[in-house]
Amino acid sequence: MEKNKRPRIAIDVMGGDYGPRVMIPGAIQAARRRDLALSFVGNQELVEEELSRNLHNGLEVDIVHAGDVAGMADKPSHILRRKKDTSIQVAYNLVRENEADGIVSAGHTGVTLGCGIFALGRIKGIERPGLATILPRENKPLIIIDVGANVDSKPRHLVQFAIMAEALAVNVLKIQEPQIGILSIGEEQGKGNVQVNETYSLLARSSMNFVGNVEGRDLFHGDVDVVVCDGFVGNVVLKLSEGLGSAFSKMLRTELKRGFWSRLGTMLALPALKRFRRRLDYEEYGGAPLLGLNGVSFVCHGSSGIRAIQSSVEMAGSYVRNQANDDIRSGLEAHPEITRFHRLKHILHTPGKGTAQDEEPEAES
Amino acid sequence: MEKNKRPRIAIDVMGGDYGPRVMIPGAIQAARRRDLALSFVGNQELVEEELSRNLHNGLEVDIVHAGDVAGMADKPSHILRRKKDTSIQVAYNLVRENEADGIVSAGHTGVTLGCGIFALGRIKGIERPGLATILPRENKPLIIIDVGANVDSKPRHLVQFAIMAEALAVNVLKIQEPQIGILSIGEEQGKGNVQVNETYSLLARSSMNFVGNVEGRDLFHGDVDVVVCDGFVGNVVLKLSEGLGSAFSKMLRTELKRGFWSRLGTMLALPALKRFRRRLDYEEYGGAPLLGLNGVSFVCHGSSGIRAIQSSVEMAGSYVRNQANDDIRSGLEAHPEITRFHRLKHILHTPGKGTAQDEEPEAES
Repeated sequence: MEKNKRPRIAIDVMGGDYGPRVMIPGAIQAARRRDLALSFVGNQELVEEELSRNLHNGLEVDIVHAGDVAGMADKPSHILRRKKDTSIQVAYNLVRENEADGIVSAGHTGVTLGCGIFALGRIKGIERPGLATILPRENKPLIIIDVGANVDSKPRHLVQFAIMAEALAVNVLKIQEPQIGILSIGEEQGKGNVQVNETYSLLARSSMNFVGNVEGRDLFHGDVDVVVCDGFVGNVVLKLSEGLGSAFSKMLRTELKRGFWSRLGTMLALPALKRFRRRLDYEEYGGAPLLGLNGVSFVCHGSSGIRAIQSSVEMAGSYVRNQANDDIRSGLEAHPEITRFHRLKHILHTPGKGTAQDEEPEAES
Repeated sequence: MEKNKRPRIAIDVMGGDYGPRVMIPGAIQAARRRDLALSFVGNQELVEEELSRNLHNGLEVDIVHAGDVAGMADKPSHILRRKKDTSIQVAYNLVRENEADGIVSAGHTGVTLGCGIFALGRIKGIERPGLATILPRENKPLIIIDVGANVDSKPRHLVQFAIMAEALAVNVLKIQEPQIGILSIGEEQGKGNVQVNETYSLLARSSMNFVGNVEGRDLFHGDVDVVVCDGFVGNVVLKLSEGLGSAFSKMLRTELKRGFWSRLGTMLALPALKRFRRRLDYEEYGGAPLLGLNGVSFVCHGSSGIRAIQSSVEMAGSYVRNQANDDIRSGLEAHPEITRFHRLKHILHTPGKGTAQDEEPEAES
């Protein structure tokens, strides 16, 4: 994106449980607050209908028609082979053709990932895009990466996740020198599995502000800003947090309904209890940035409401405006040990190029 | 243990944050309710002092003096090399010498595991003991295994965990044909990492009531009785649940203190809120069975109160009385494919015994 230009975000209005009804008002609110341009991608008729219900005077708003929709049951491979005109694909193509600077979708995560890699490719040096999530906490938000874009990641992939999340923390969340930790099962170095221990050594050698292992119980009241983990563990953590939130709400309701005084007390404390429930509701806190693509992509929960969409579009705008992907690129350059691993692998798999020992990695020269 | 004999549980009274003050009254209550005999192991003077404060008429109670204590900072290897007379070691020795049928401790988990393997050895066919935890739910309890005795477990280890947890579910929790699931990041087969997918195939071929993948969000409101996972993931799940429980309680308190009506309502609803907090408090639900030892061992949270100790001692008694370890042995025999893997490994590592291909595994003949 050229500097000082207004960022344009392509909105896939067809994804998610509520489609245009939440995508359009959410995006419009974000555009007003953060001075963004919007391209609504989807069925033209539906978009026009919903737009007519939402004041958007003074905003730069385009409609881009897409004839098809990626269903929640469609597999990414199926869509990539058989379809060309789904709203998510059309939205990504706008970014590829420099007609938009980023996308926001509430569709299927796997499809958003697959189509994103196909349309935009990955940032050079990033082997696996990572799905980050931003969790609310008392004092400041927490980024967890990867929450399920990959499984069985190698230590160097986890370091790449850390570099990407650091750029997100600095540029979008405005955290100075974010503290980076790794999710493990004890605080001391050496606690954890092989993957964690090898990643620990790599991160400890980097110039990042690495603070070591973080335990599950400290995720929600620590100082750490970024926690890296394998996508399997991260996805379990994310879904468990959601599940526990709703289980706790249910238990609380059950208890508060028992007995006359409790019921009366509950009525009086109702606004407080509503605030509490809202704070448990992770879906209110916007999207999950898909980091590592040659472009900006935010994925929202399928059940997102207007506020979650608004927050995602705002973050996407901030990500574009602050050119966070450039920071990922320079982060990768600042850590040649990772690039080197990547090159070695490449060399080892290219016949006739000699062995890894013969070749001097470019990053070092 | 001979049939119809009263089970005798050795209590390591020195472990945990509160030592004899909770271990002794908790164990005495359990012994009364479940007709158990007790051996209190620890500093004789302290035990006698605490016993004098707790009515124990009519109970079979022994005191076994132990001159030393395993501190929370002591490493298992250090204790095994340097010490012989810690209360946990003396308690395990009682089981080894058939002077007790099982132990309950609230000391360091790693020490309890290490000393247990050293004193009792493992059940034949079990390569790695697993730490199980029993979580409370609305309808029925849930067993998760392994919650941190091991990391980087192989698929066959996870199958062994499943066999052990099945025995616990049937014999102690009295669940008929318990449903066994595996923790993963999607419901369909094929979702998950390599470890999970390979374990899935093994479990699907077993005669256990295997129900497939279970997601994090479904742990707390599903029908599944046993969930197996790698100890790394299990430990993250356990600690995250504890951390979220206390974070939620704190958030709720903060909200309820805002404004006059909320405060008044909170006062009226106080008993309900207390019940709610108690339900969040996993520590109230007793110990984690350490499965796979040649003997019975229950580990309690260091901060356990009297009720948690009581519940653990009761479960240990039930485990002994129902000879659950015999069920683990027959479970292993019913699944020769696991034993076979074990033998192959053994053969491959024994020089001069030929290759695995030459040897017909005994389990098959």
